[in-house]
Amino acid sequence: MAAQQHRNDLILESVRRLLRMGATPNLLNLLQKQHPADLAQIFAELPDRERHAAFNILVERNGRLAMEALSELGPEKGAELLALRSAEDIARLSQEIASDDAAALVDQLPEELSTAVLELIRPKPGGGVTELLEYEEQTAGRLMNPNVFALSEDLTAGEAITALQTARDVEMVFYLYVVDERRHLVGVVSLRRLLLVPPDTPLKRIMTSDIYSARVDTDQEEVARQVASYNLLAIPVVDAENKLVGLITVDDVIDVIKDEATEDVYRLAGVSRDDGILTPPKESLRRRLPWLLVNLLTAFIAASVVGLFSHTIDRVVALAVFMPVVAGMGGNAATQTLAVVVRGIALGELTWSNARHALIKEGLVGLGNGVAIGLVGAVLVWVVTRGDWPLGLILMAAMIINMFVAAIAGTLIPLGLRVLKIDPALASSVFITTFTDVFGFLSFLGLATIFVRFLPQG
Amino acid sequence: MAAQQHRNDLILESVRRLLRMGATPNLLNLLQKQHPADLAQIFAELPDRERHAAFNILVERNGRLAMEALSELGPEKGAELLALRSAEDIARLSQEIASDDAAALVDQLPEELSTAVLELIRPKPGGGVTELLEYEEQTAGRLMNPNVFALSEDLTAGEAITALQTARDVEMVFYLYVVDERRHLVGVVSLRRLLLVPPDTPLKRIMTSDIYSARVDTDQEEVARQVASYNLLAIPVVDAENKLVGLITVDDVIDVIKDEATEDVYRLAGVSRDDGILTPPKESLRRRLPWLLVNLLTAFIAASVVGLFSHTIDRVVALAVFMPVVAGMGGNAATQTLAVVVRGIALGELTWSNARHALIKEGLVGLGNGVAIGLVGAVLVWVVTRGDWPLGLILMAAMIINMFVAAIAGTLIPLGLRVLKIDPALASSVFITTFTDVFGFLSFLGLATIFVRFLPQG
Repeated sequence: MAAQQHRNDLILESVRRLLRMGATPNLLNLLQKQHPADLAQIFAELPDRERHAAFNILVERNGRLAMEALSELGPEKGAELLALRSAEDIARLSQEIASDDAAALVDQLPEELSTAVLELIRPKPGGGVTELLEYEEQTAGRLMNPNVFALSEDLTAGEAITALQTARDVEMVFYLYVVDERRHLVGVVSLRRLLLVPPDTPLKRIMTSDIYSARVDTDQEEVARQVASYNLLAIPVVDAENKLVGLITVDDVIDVIKDEATEDVYRLAGVSRDDGILTPPKESLRRRLPWLLVNLLTAFIAASVVGLFSHTIDRVVALAVFMPVVAGMGGNAATQTLAVVVRGIALGELTWSNARHALIKEGLVGLGNGVAIGLVGAVLVWVVTRGDWPLGLILMAAMIINMFVAAIAGTLIPLGLRVLKIDPALASSVFITTFTDVFGFLSFLGLATIFVRFLPQG
Repeated sequence: MAAQQHRNDLILESVRRLLRMGATPNLLNLLQKQHPADLAQIFAELPDRERHAAFNILVERNGRLAMEALSELGPEKGAELLALRSAEDIARLSQEIASDDAAALVDQLPEELSTAVLELIRPKPGGGVTELLEYEEQTAGRLMNPNVFALSEDLTAGEAITALQTARDVEMVFYLYVVDERRHLVGVVSLRRLLLVPPDTPLKRIMTSDIYSARVDTDQEEVARQVASYNLLAIPVVDAENKLVGLITVDDVIDVIKDEATEDVYRLAGVSRDDGILTPPKESLRRRLPWLLVNLLTAFIAASVVGLFSHTIDRVVALAVFMPVVAGMGGNAATQTLAVVVRGIALGELTWSNARHALIKEGLVGLGNGVAIGLVGAVLVWVVTRGDWPLGLILMAAMIINMFVAAIAGTLIPLGLRVLKIDPALASSVFITTFTDVFGFLSFLGLATIFVRFLPQG
């Protein structure tokens, strides 16, 4: 990290200096030496105005590199840089990059512009962009590159090598897919295998027909899971009739895995997927506020539970001191369970067949934690209040109840959301902390009300 | 997901039935048809005893497949299945899989057994396992496969193809690395490029010398970041003298990315990295309890702040009802900021050069959220208490203070941890929620104490 980071910081400084000096040729020279991924990082860190300036200079000279950098920057931020250009310009530039990346960018443009660009691209042969945008978001169809190189099953190994040598625009060859005359996917052969057999060997004889593939409507998370599980470098995408229509490569899968991981972290914390460290304050505010408002309402629900017992609190003010402890510890235990369950679902470790097992396990852990934490808590209360053991016992009982309930809720709520086909990570703060707050206050203050005559008043 | 999951469930059922019936030949037949990744999933879902039984049956017949399944299962769970076998057995089986996978497994065996296995492996030529374990955990050295195929720079393209054809144990060829006579890494050439040039072209002329590589001591996260950024399929690993010593492939990188993402989710929630849905309850309890105990202590610190104001609460019991709202909302806002900052660091978006910018931004968002949430909160208090506007104003002021502080703490604490070279995700619950609880109680109850004469008593 350190070295690469340092290098990028130096380049960033140079870019800014050259921009200020208006030294366009030097700037172009510097930018053109960078890898698209590094350029994207540089664009991301430049202030808005300088980012536009640098991009505009680069795109005039080296459209492909500029567009590749935009692909790396991500569709949303990339579209922002494109949005000031004419539809003709954007349509032309889109041809410089893979159709899947172009489709993602065009999709994020303001609607009018996006339509205009699509109009211009449509007539082109094999444009791809328009077709890709017809697939649902987050499916294999959206993610794939439609320019997939395929060999006819009637070729020999030698003919296949010649076909490969004359093919254009086949940047990376991972596997060679074999199709029949109607383009149905029938097999796969590795480049190395091709080299090992006599040139007149028919492909049919050396291809593997047991082949992993995804359908255009397969969810991108499932595609990622397949590629990761089976250590694939790429996976072919077929339509409903098993015709080969595209290819998803491992680098796209890595992006999906990273995005999904970020989404899990974000959702558990109540942050929307488009938020980030580089999002402008106004945008971040707009995206986080609704979530906090929901939180506020649920916090008031929990507060109303406290309100039910204000008579008891009025008599024993120490309850107000310790009630956040019971509620908070339930929240912490629930967060632990939630993290394990949500990640278990995301990684495919938690399935329907072991869900019951997981519930029992988490319940036991919750109970065990409740007893241990409750005991320590009781002792601490006893110390802090100089000998008030009834209050300590009530806290312990409430802890046990609340941490057990927290564990059960932390398991069932994400599983329930999954049944409802809602992302389990959305279970997050809102549901769980309301749950544990309500149960924490209810059990602690409820028990205190029942046993109030054992508590020192005042 | 659905289809694959369903298929695995069916196979799992069959495995259990065949085990019960003692139908070993049929069981072997079924197991041997599975992909190692699917076998790993099946092993993971079987109860302990059946897992051992199934593994033992498979390993006797097909050692390689059994060991590959263990690699997919992960070193910890894999070592558990191996631990009952003799050192000789394990040493022999280790040769069946890649040295990096074997090293990871052996490293997780009980110490005595692990030493015995290493003794047995050591004498073998190019054993690799022993050497790999000498590298630090989570570095490129640990992750790499030392069996890397390299070509001498003095070869021609034709000779290179012949070398490739006669090479053994080169399962996947990603890139062909070129080395000088002392095995210094000097270039790379793609397989496709080799096919496109006349056979007598010297490798030196067609290789790219501008090559991405990792050093044995590079952190695995950094390796993952490079491979992901530059869309590589593999990255060569060199020692301090730039000699080629190994290769890290994209499938290993995917595992690193998934592990690091899980770690982020877990750490934010206070769960240790070895915990999971399939961890036995006793283990999970042992791992989560210390974290909860730390939480308990910090919760008592926050409670002691409430204790400071028990006199005020005694006079205005409504404060007890609303104080968890102020503390909780600060916690929620801090969690949002924390998620964005931690993920920003993990994805490399947050760097030293934009840290100040990020702090200002998050501070502004915290302030904005505080004003908006505080306003709504004040109105809600006014409604709930039927017209107590001074209490509402105090709640609003406390909200603004607390959510601003929450945003600043949510940014500075993970950055501070990073300076101290501690994983920023460890910032999690403990520091942040203590912070927001203390500040929430302090600002709300403090303001209430100052303005207590405006509040309705009782």
